[in-house]
Amino acid sequence: MENKLSENLFDEVFATRMLDIPRSFLREILKVAISPGMISFAGGLPNKDLFPLEAIRKACDHVLTHYGPDILQYSNSEGLHELRAHIADHYKQRGISHVSPDNILITHGSQQALDLLAKVLVNEGDRVVLEEPSYLGAIQALSLFRPQFVPVPLSDEGMDVERLKDVFSENVKLMYVIPNFQNPSGISYSESNRRAVAEIIKGTKTFLVEDDPYGELRFSGKEKTSFINLAPENTILLGSFSKTVVPAFRLGWVVVPSELMEKMVVAKQAADLHTNSFTQQVIYQYLIDNDPAAHIAKIVERYSAQKQAMTAAIEKYFPPSVTHTNPEGGMFLWLKLPEGVSAMRFFEMAVKDGVCVVPGHPFYIGRDDVSTVRLSFSCVDEKTIDEGMRRLGAVAYQLCPRTEAEQKNAQRRGPAGHDLV
Amino acid sequence: MENKLSENLFDEVFATRMLDIPRSFLREILKVAISPGMISFAGGLPNKDLFPLEAIRKACDHVLTHYGPDILQYSNSEGLHELRAHIADHYKQRGISHVSPDNILITHGSQQALDLLAKVLVNEGDRVVLEEPSYLGAIQALSLFRPQFVPVPLSDEGMDVERLKDVFSENVKLMYVIPNFQNPSGISYSESNRRAVAEIIKGTKTFLVEDDPYGELRFSGKEKTSFINLAPENTILLGSFSKTVVPAFRLGWVVVPSELMEKMVVAKQAADLHTNSFTQQVIYQYLIDNDPAAHIAKIVERYSAQKQAMTAAIEKYFPPSVTHTNPEGGMFLWLKLPEGVSAMRFFEMAVKDGVCVVPGHPFYIGRDDVSTVRLSFSCVDEKTIDEGMRRLGAVAYQLCPRTEAEQKNAQRRGPAGHDLV
Repeated sequence: MENKLSENLFDEVFATRMLDIPRSFLREILKVAISPGMISFAGGLPNKDLFPLEAIRKACDHVLTHYGPDILQYSNSEGLHELRAHIADHYKQRGISHVSPDNILITHGSQQALDLLAKVLVNEGDRVVLEEPSYLGAIQALSLFRPQFVPVPLSDEGMDVERLKDVFSENVKLMYVIPNFQNPSGISYSESNRRAVAEIIKGTKTFLVEDDPYGELRFSGKEKTSFINLAPENTILLGSFSKTVVPAFRLGWVVVPSELMEKMVVAKQAADLHTNSFTQQVIYQYLIDNDPAAHIAKIVERYSAQKQAMTAAIEKYFPPSVTHTNPEGGMFLWLKLPEGVSAMRFFEMAVKDGVCVVPGHPFYIGRDDVSTVRLSFSCVDEKTIDEGMRRLGAVAYQLCPRTEAEQKNAQRRGPAGHDLV
Repeated sequence: MENKLSENLFDEVFATRMLDIPRSFLREILKVAISPGMISFAGGLPNKDLFPLEAIRKACDHVLTHYGPDILQYSNSEGLHELRAHIADHYKQRGISHVSPDNILITHGSQQALDLLAKVLVNEGDRVVLEEPSYLGAIQALSLFRPQFVPVPLSDEGMDVERLKDVFSENVKLMYVIPNFQNPSGISYSESNRRAVAEIIKGTKTFLVEDDPYGELRFSGKEKTSFINLAPENTILLGSFSKTVVPAFRLGWVVVPSELMEKMVVAKQAADLHTNSFTQQVIYQYLIDNDPAAHIAKIVERYSAQKQAMTAAIEKYFPPSVTHTNPEGGMFLWLKLPEGVSAMRFFEMAVKDGVCVVPGHPFYIGRDDVSTVRLSFSCVDEKTIDEGMRRLGAVAYQLCPRTEAEQKNAQRRGPAGHDLV
C-alpha cells in the first residue's frame, strides 16, 4: 500500500492469540531449498513425477460434461456425499469398520481439520499432548488457541508410555499423534505400544487425534491397528489425498464422533462455507475411474527405493556416532547427531555445501537448539541422494567429535573425508 | 459410529467459544427450499445458468497441459502471484490505485478472510461494529472469537451516522460493512454517507472491513467510492469470484495493510496451508482468456430484469403497508412488513403456499422476532417471480392490518385477494 500506516495503529492491534506464533522457519528454509543447484531433503512434498496428471484431466472433463453448471454452484458444508461414502468404504477395506459417512467432514486439507478441532475443543490453557518431536503444522494450528502443550517423547517403538501415564494424572483435552511414519521422525508405533497408549486413554474425556496422511505409503512390515479400533470412543481420525493423489486440491477429511459433528460443521461453515466442491467431485471421479491402489503401489516402490538409498548412504558416508530412524513407510527420516552437536550449525554448513535439510528445533515446543535433523527422501532420485548424503556426511564428520576407531574408519572410507584434510 | 459415546464424554467438552453459536437457521431453510415444486427466494446463490462452463473447461485443460504436474503440487500461502497482480490491476481500473499484489492474500472464499481477520485481530470482548441487519456468515465467523457486537442501523442511505459517532466514543476493534447492494438488505451507501462514515473512522485504530462480493453487479446508478479511497489507512477490502465467475472453487481474497499481511499469512498457513492452487490457476486462465466484463454484463442484465419483475410484483400484489428496498445491484431485496407483523409467521405461511423466503431475524444480533424478510431474485425467472410474489402478496394481505382504503384497493386488484375470501 502506498499509504504507510502509522506505527501507532499497530500497537496492540493484534489479538493475544497471535503473539506466540513464530514466523515459520520452514518457509524460510524452503526459500533456500529452491535456489538453483541446491539438493533438497528439506521439503515435505510428495513427488510430482508421480501425480496422475492424465487421469485428473479426464476426471475434470468428465465432471464438467456430466454434471454441467450444477457442479460449479455452492455446495453443502459436510462435503460430497459420494466421496464421504467412498472414504468410509476404504476404511472398511483397511479393517476399520466403525466409520460412517455421516461422521466424515471433508476439509481443505487435514490441516484445516486441525484448525476446526482446535476451535471446537480447545480453551486457553487446556492441556494438549503432543509427540516430541511433533508435526509443525499441528503445533501452529493448535498454538492459535493457546493450549498448554505437554510433549511426550517418542522412541523407535512409539510413545513413552510411562511418561504418558504421568501426564494423564491431570486432565488432557486433546492428544495429537501420527502413529504411522511420523512427520518429522519417520517413527511408527508398535502394536504393543498402541495398545498401551489406548489403555491409558480409554475411559478418559480425552480425544486422541490420529493423523494418518502417510499410512498407505508402507514399504515394509505389517499394517498396524488404528486407534479407532483400540479406543473408538476417544479417537478422531484425520486423512488426506495430498500424499496419495495430489496436494494442490487441498482435500482432506476428519472422522469425528456424532456428538462432535454438528459443531464441526458449524465451525466449517464459519471458516469457509464448504470445501471446493468441483475438486471434491474430480477426486471422487478419479478414485472410481482408476486403480488408486495400483497408483499408491507405484509411489511406494519409488519412495522405498529412495529411502533405501538414503539409509545406505548414511552407513557409507556418516560417522557411526550419527544414528537414524529406519522408517517402514512415508516420506521422512530422522537423523540424530551426537548430543551437543548443533543441528542449526549442521544446517548452515550443509546449505553452504549445496544441500538443504530441516534442523529439528521447529518440531519441538520451547527448544531452540537440538541435535536432530529431518530428511525427506520423497522427491530426490537415488543418484542425487547419494551425492547429497556424501556432502552431508562430510559435514557430520566435521562437526562430530570422533573416537580413534572412528578416525581410522573414516580414513578407510575415503570419499567422505575429502573435506576434512 | 457404531460405538455410542457416553454422554459424559461430552459434558463440558466443547470450547467456550462454541457455546454461543446457534445452528444455522439458514441451513434448515435451504433444506425446505429444495423441496420439489417450491418457489425459492431464499438461497443466496448466483444463477448457475450463467456459469461460464465451457470457458472453465478450456481453462482446466489449458492449465493441466501447459503447467503439467507442477500445478498439482503444494503452493505458497499468499496465493498465485499472477492472480494477485490481476486483482490489483482490476482495482486500478475501478479507480482504486492503492492496492499492491503484495497486500493481497488469496483465501477459500471471502468467508475465510473473515475467519482469518477475526483470528488475527479480535480478542474476547473487543467491540465489533456490524450493520443492522448484517451478513449472517460474518456474524458466525466473528462470533467464534467472542467479540462484543455493536449493531448500527442501516437506512436507505447507509449507516446511521449519529449512532456511529456515539459508538465511536469508545474503542472499536473492527467494523464490518457491505456498502454495495448489501446482503441481506440490498441497501447501498450514498456517496455522502460514505464520506461521513470515513470521517468518523479516520485517525482511529479501527479497521473497517469493506466486503464487496456484489460491487460489480450494478444495474443502475453510478459506482460509489470505496472506503479504501476515503480512509486508506483503516480499510481492509474483501473480494470474491463466487458471484462473478463460480462459487464452487471457493476463491476470494483480502487486501490488508502491509503490517497485517505477515500475521494473516501465518494464520492462513495454520488454517489450511494455502488455497487450492489448481483452481487459482484455472480462474486466472479464465480471466485472461475471456472477457470477464462482458460476462458480468450478462449477469447484470439478467439479475436487473429479475429485480424489476420482483419490485413490479410487490407494487401489484402487496398491501401498501409493506415497503421494500430498491437495490441498484446485487442479488437481494428487503421486505419490511408493518411493525408487529411477525416475519417468522410470514415465512411459515409462505412455505405452506409453496414459496420459501428468509425471515430477517438471523441477520440481527439478539433479536428473535422481526418484521423484515430477505428475498433473492438471482435464481428465479420473471414468470416464476410473478407467481411467487402473487402468493407472498396474498400472505401479506392475510397478516397485515388494513386501513379501509387499502381494503378497497385490494378488492379492485382482485388476484391477490383470492385466498382472503
